[in-house]
Amino acid sequence: MSEQYQKRLNKFIQYLENQQVDVAIVNSPKNVFYYTGFHSEPYERFMALVIDLRNQKNYLFVPALDQEAAEETSYVKEIVPVSDELNPYKVLKDTIGEDLQSIGLETKNTSLFQQEQLHSLFSNFSYQNIGEFISSQRMRKSSEECRKVQHAVQVIEKVLKEGITRIKDGMTELDLVAEFEYLMRKFGADGPSFSTTVLSGEKSSLPHGSPNRKKLNHGDFLLVDMGVIVDGYCSDITRTFVMGEETAEQRRIYDIVREATKEGILAAKAGVSAGSVDIAARNVIQMNGYGQYFNNRVGHGLGMEVHEEPSIHEKNKLTLEPGFLFTIEPGIYIPGYGGVRMEENVYIEEDGKAKVLTTFPTELIKIGY
Amino acid sequence: MSEQYQKRLNKFIQYLENQQVDVAIVNSPKNVFYYTGFHSEPYERFMALVIDLRNQKNYLFVPALDQEAAEETSYVKEIVPVSDELNPYKVLKDTIGEDLQSIGLETKNTSLFQQEQLHSLFSNFSYQNIGEFISSQRMRKSSEECRKVQHAVQVIEKVLKEGITRIKDGMTELDLVAEFEYLMRKFGADGPSFSTTVLSGEKSSLPHGSPNRKKLNHGDFLLVDMGVIVDGYCSDITRTFVMGEETAEQRRIYDIVREATKEGILAAKAGVSAGSVDIAARNVIQMNGYGQYFNNRVGHGLGMEVHEEPSIHEKNKLTLEPGFLFTIEPGIYIPGYGGVRMEENVYIEEDGKAKVLTTFPTELIKIGY
Repeated sequence: MSEQYQKRLNKFIQYLENQQVDVAIVNSPKNVFYYTGFHSEPYERFMALVIDLRNQKNYLFVPALDQEAAEETSYVKEIVPVSDELNPYKVLKDTIGEDLQSIGLETKNTSLFQQEQLHSLFSNFSYQNIGEFISSQRMRKSSEECRKVQHAVQVIEKVLKEGITRIKDGMTELDLVAEFEYLMRKFGADGPSFSTTVLSGEKSSLPHGSPNRKKLNHGDFLLVDMGVIVDGYCSDITRTFVMGEETAEQRRIYDIVREATKEGILAAKAGVSAGSVDIAARNVIQMNGYGQYFNNRVGHGLGMEVHEEPSIHEKNKLTLEPGFLFTIEPGIYIPGYGGVRMEENVYIEEDGKAKVLTTFPTELIKIGY
Repeated sequence: MSEQYQKRLNKFIQYLENQQVDVAIVNSPKNVFYYTGFHSEPYERFMALVIDLRNQKNYLFVPALDQEAAEETSYVKEIVPVSDELNPYKVLKDTIGEDLQSIGLETKNTSLFQQEQLHSLFSNFSYQNIGEFISSQRMRKSSEECRKVQHAVQVIEKVLKEGITRIKDGMTELDLVAEFEYLMRKFGADGPSFSTTVLSGEKSSLPHGSPNRKKLNHGDFLLVDMGVIVDGYCSDITRTFVMGEETAEQRRIYDIVREATKEGILAAKAGVSAGSVDIAARNVIQMNGYGQYFNNRVGHGLGMEVHEEPSIHEKNKLTLEPGFLFTIEPGIYIPGYGGVRMEENVYIEEDGKAKVLTTFPTELIKIGY
């Protein structure tokens, strides 16, 4: 295990040296996890991996209450605990000294407040964005990381399979969420990877809707979008069911979305742009006259976070490479009527081909109750 | 309902006018919820309440996929959907025009990346921090908001009461988490307010530890720290139990923590500093010789977020006022041995007295299994 952290960190340090960064501050919890193996949600407290290239030292700053946990799990062994009553930037300065010309920061994860704090303690530094390098490093996943996502996919598919057998008359969306989340834990998940989504009837047309006390009704679409975190890696799958017998219109929409998903998967391979995957799926929906009902991107990267790089949207020219892992999830959302989405997880393998990690059937399943 | 949003927004706009802000950008999801009633987690997408004081117009920028939901629930009716393939800052500029001298930003929730984007589109603006005003506005909670937290407390206490009756021989920490989270949904929660914490034996000494497959053993401390979100507001309660009969040492530690909690509550009232609540609780632990085993603050604000203002740490000179709602949660954490924490939620009422919202018994409960 420690070997992988060493490898990642060495690659990162080499980049920082090339950029002539004096000190790098990695402060997003997932990136700290990526390089150290220590995972914590510090909320508003200060937590950061600090790489001092002038002195070739690495420190892990953690809230004091995390000290014991950090000492147990972090690959970086120099732990600096910060008590709640201290100014963490002052502790930082006391630890690394002050002659800094260039600080590497994650510009998407560093706030203006943090910048102000740094400016009040370190005079005249400039900053460079280190976030893009980290994202690109994380985007290229090892087969070991793919196996972890695959395991998270296996768990969520087991949950989905078992969960839909528990649907009963009079059940609400939230009741079904409770069943799914119970099963997640039972089947070995550390937790859901995002807020479990169960939407029925016309609510299924809300790509970001929230489950509530609405009852599942006969004839409804039932859209389930959920995932789990296991061992630090996420899955994210969507299937849409019909409660009872589907209408011709429901069947038509379902089949188009299924076809769009298939075309998206066929387009995914090393050497093509991320955008071309979006377009391949989107074309199916547009050619069938439902283009106006699909107004978001086709997918997103997946790994330690449920949304990460690459973004699979039509204008993204980024070339897909081995190691990329992302979702393909086209949908048709008709306001006031309902919607269908299907979501698969794919990984670009060493040979450039896409491996579909999700295996749950894509045929329309009718829920009898 | 809409009256409350109008009132909050008017107060905020008055502040912005006094600060001579041209345009304010509120971009933390909870703050958007506070002023508009629309709640969504946009992940990396752009979502913001934009207040244009030059033209007296308010806009809610949302990801295109949230448009329908925003139109249904937002008090601010001018919804600007942003599709995934567009640059949201460009959309912002197209909407509000470009002559900006002063932009109000939440400096703790605005990233350097966002600042760079703004600078690339709007020339020569300066920014002011509007975050502290929003925090202070949110810190002064109405009795209606208190009732919402109280409801979330009632739900989690019901979960805790029922959950501990389900503890069985051979159960792991994660099994118990599954039971608790299932009950949360069953008893009407929208979800946990944070990652449900069940820690047993020596793991209970980790204030931020994570539950795993460790079995609950006879003689262990069992620390449960959890909460729910209901209708947008959070609860957060901790109780520590003993599996079977406690030892004299366990009893001693438990009683000290219980006494510390009681003293913290007695100290809480309008007109005293936040720090004095911390000190009152901490003194009990220190006088009993366990000071070295309590190295974090005594509490934190609680409301729409599980951690918000005020921070109850010993150096915080902020004076408590009616409307403040926060946790009091002293603990003793002995590495390699175990720990005890007790956590109550209190609200400072109009008359300046503290009302304890949590009602779960504080006597040591022995779990028989």
